[in-house]
Amino acid sequence: MSEPARIGVLGRGTVGGAFVEQLSERAFQVEAISGRRPEVAGVLRRAEGDFAEILRDSEIIVELIGGTSPAREYVLEALAAGRHVVTANKQLIAQHGDELFARAREAGVQLRFEAAVAGVVPVIRVMQETLAATEITRVSGIVNGTTNFILSEMASTGATYGDALARAQELGFAETDPTEDVGGADAAAKMAILARLAFDTPVNLEDVTFEGITEISPEDIAYAKELGLSLKLLGVAERRGEGISVRVFPCFLYGGHPLAPVEGPFNAVTVEAPAITEITMSGPGAGGVQTATAVLGDVVSILAGDAPVDHARARLEVVRDVSSSFYLHLEVADRPGVLAQIADVLGRNGISVQSVVQRGLGDDARLVMVLHEAPESRFYGALAEIGELTFLRAAPRAIRVIEEEFL
Amino acid sequence: MSEPARIGVLGRGTVGGAFVEQLSERAFQVEAISGRRPEVAGVLRRAEGDFAEILRDSEIIVELIGGTSPAREYVLEALAAGRHVVTANKQLIAQHGDELFARAREAGVQLRFEAAVAGVVPVIRVMQETLAATEITRVSGIVNGTTNFILSEMASTGATYGDALARAQELGFAETDPTEDVGGADAAAKMAILARLAFDTPVNLEDVTFEGITEISPEDIAYAKELGLSLKLLGVAERRGEGISVRVFPCFLYGGHPLAPVEGPFNAVTVEAPAITEITMSGPGAGGVQTATAVLGDVVSILAGDAPVDHARARLEVVRDVSSSFYLHLEVADRPGVLAQIADVLGRNGISVQSVVQRGLGDDARLVMVLHEAPESRFYGALAEIGELTFLRAAPRAIRVIEEEFL
Repeated sequence: MSEPARIGVLGRGTVGGAFVEQLSERAFQVEAISGRRPEVAGVLRRAEGDFAEILRDSEIIVELIGGTSPAREYVLEALAAGRHVVTANKQLIAQHGDELFARAREAGVQLRFEAAVAGVVPVIRVMQETLAATEITRVSGIVNGTTNFILSEMASTGATYGDALARAQELGFAETDPTEDVGGADAAAKMAILARLAFDTPVNLEDVTFEGITEISPEDIAYAKELGLSLKLLGVAERRGEGISVRVFPCFLYGGHPLAPVEGPFNAVTVEAPAITEITMSGPGAGGVQTATAVLGDVVSILAGDAPVDHARARLEVVRDVSSSFYLHLEVADRPGVLAQIADVLGRNGISVQSVVQRGLGDDARLVMVLHEAPESRFYGALAEIGELTFLRAAPRAIRVIEEEFL
Repeated sequence: MSEPARIGVLGRGTVGGAFVEQLSERAFQVEAISGRRPEVAGVLRRAEGDFAEILRDSEIIVELIGGTSPAREYVLEALAAGRHVVTANKQLIAQHGDELFARAREAGVQLRFEAAVAGVVPVIRVMQETLAATEITRVSGIVNGTTNFILSEMASTGATYGDALARAQELGFAETDPTEDVGGADAAAKMAILARLAFDTPVNLEDVTFEGITEISPEDIAYAKELGLSLKLLGVAERRGEGISVRVFPCFLYGGHPLAPVEGPFNAVTVEAPAITEITMSGPGAGGVQTATAVLGDVVSILAGDAPVDHARARLEVVRDVSSSFYLHLEVADRPGVLAQIADVLGRNGISVQSVVQRGLGDDARLVMVLHEAPESRFYGALAEIGELTFLRAAPRAIRVIEEEFL
């Protein structure tokens, strides 16, 4: 019988606890697959345990502390000492990926992080293995369960953003300070990781432009429902010419989009490539047990001798001014010439109108327009001009629209 | 530089052609990942090429002939000669899996078959790797694109089964002889493969009970739409007590089921386990390029040294009499006592009624009942008794109902 595989665990929160439990419950299966019986070498808690000692006794370090410090220092030290590392820490990979991967390569060890994006939904493994030799063109994802829950709640109950957030907090789907989720930063970190793998190029958090959902109103949701659209916080990483673009933004999805049916605190990712058309994967985005399962899958892969997750052979430029379709919602005074002036601003900026609906509301009117795809810089230029028009009763509201491109 | 990896290709149909093309187009990426440049050692066509020569010159044999003979003989010979084998052949694995896996184990080589189920949707890899150490409880799948296209077409246009089949044939989604698809045998072979992997036990085609969609009527579809249900041909492999059950049958799915939104010639598979809740994967189920991509993913895994896909450590009994919920549709004479007699038959067989709707149609009436879950043997016993009742105007129609169990 071969020696047991000794695994050091950093962090003993919900995920850490679930991982230690699964490792002992499933030790037999892990051994059957990998030929090695796993064993916990030690667990580092905030108040107890000695990192140096755990490092010395382990061949794999599982980092479940979260945050970037001291997680980064521990992981760098473990890699330098020739230990494989498995982490569930999205910020660590999104912010320090280049440094960490370089260190892993130098030391000839593996750095795995399936649990960092979409929990147990195996999007990283699928991109790295099934699609390893395929030219991926776009990755779209609902990668934040908190915001998807809030938007689903607003759509199904008509609740305001604030009420839906309170409900999410009550149910444990949102933190007391929800800023990182609702502002889009959490999704941005995950999209940085997905973009890195999809396009095989270094992508860091600062390459991702992001918006959150805090400005979404019940009227936006009502409009979406009326037209059979879903309003989602979407991450999109795609090839644009010779470069790539990585963004997170709220948008209207057409009904046939594979991510349109994803409701509640779920995550889902669609990967597109000419050679596959598209693959969509979905499942619970979080949860201690689910995340621990993804971590255990990575540990098994290392023990079974699977090839390392490798990266960044290309160097692609990040393009920031991409083209988008927008929905534009304007509250205006109901008087002659208003539509003409708005159409003039759009026309001068080279933006054409796909559809327009005007409804009178007493002395006011509401104009809802869907615009054809145009560079965002041009759209935002036009939007600034429109914002200056004196007949506007409220700030203009703009939300991106993802058109049906599938089948 | 290491030696090129020589790959012998058996079969040069649509998939074979696409594979050879992808292998040459993506040779650089394959080498970057695996360290080995792939090279085609030879292609065996029906009328040309010598198997013995290709075998001698290859380290991996890719079997894309289809059917079980001579595919089985070639694959057995290749494995015995110490060659890794990648195949897209579901019938080969479903009918001869035990023999082939035993041969691969003896020879210490890999047998991979991601493309055999759901094309490029990476369900096999995910079960074998991500979920390797997880106890899977159920796998549900829409694994036949032809039947899903036909059912989607019937639902969206109100077409009869015959018209929808003709349309599928016109579009190339159904064969001239569609028996294997529409009768459920194709889905049964794929479910045998998924059950083998999910439960780590030998499962062969004859262990799978299956029904097709040839008896589905526009009325069934209309009823489904009225209640917000989808009618799908579903494969279900699940643990039942100490054993397993593997079945393929048409059924009504509740709206919130993760497979309910899957439309057209797509495939999708949901895997459930306590440690993951559920993961759903979907994508195009067929197509030469897509299937070739899945085959290439397997070739890359072998070259990169990934652990083999291994199987059948357990020996689980196949349970045939499982419990199901049914929808029961009866055309009866509209006279007193009819409902009472039917209720009596159901009651004596221990089957309770969840809901019933009776509608008068002149002298006739239509009874639509949804029954609570009960062993299928009891339900079919009751159905036979009901079939004998003299007031029946047409044969009773029964379709299974999958209740919402998610979230």
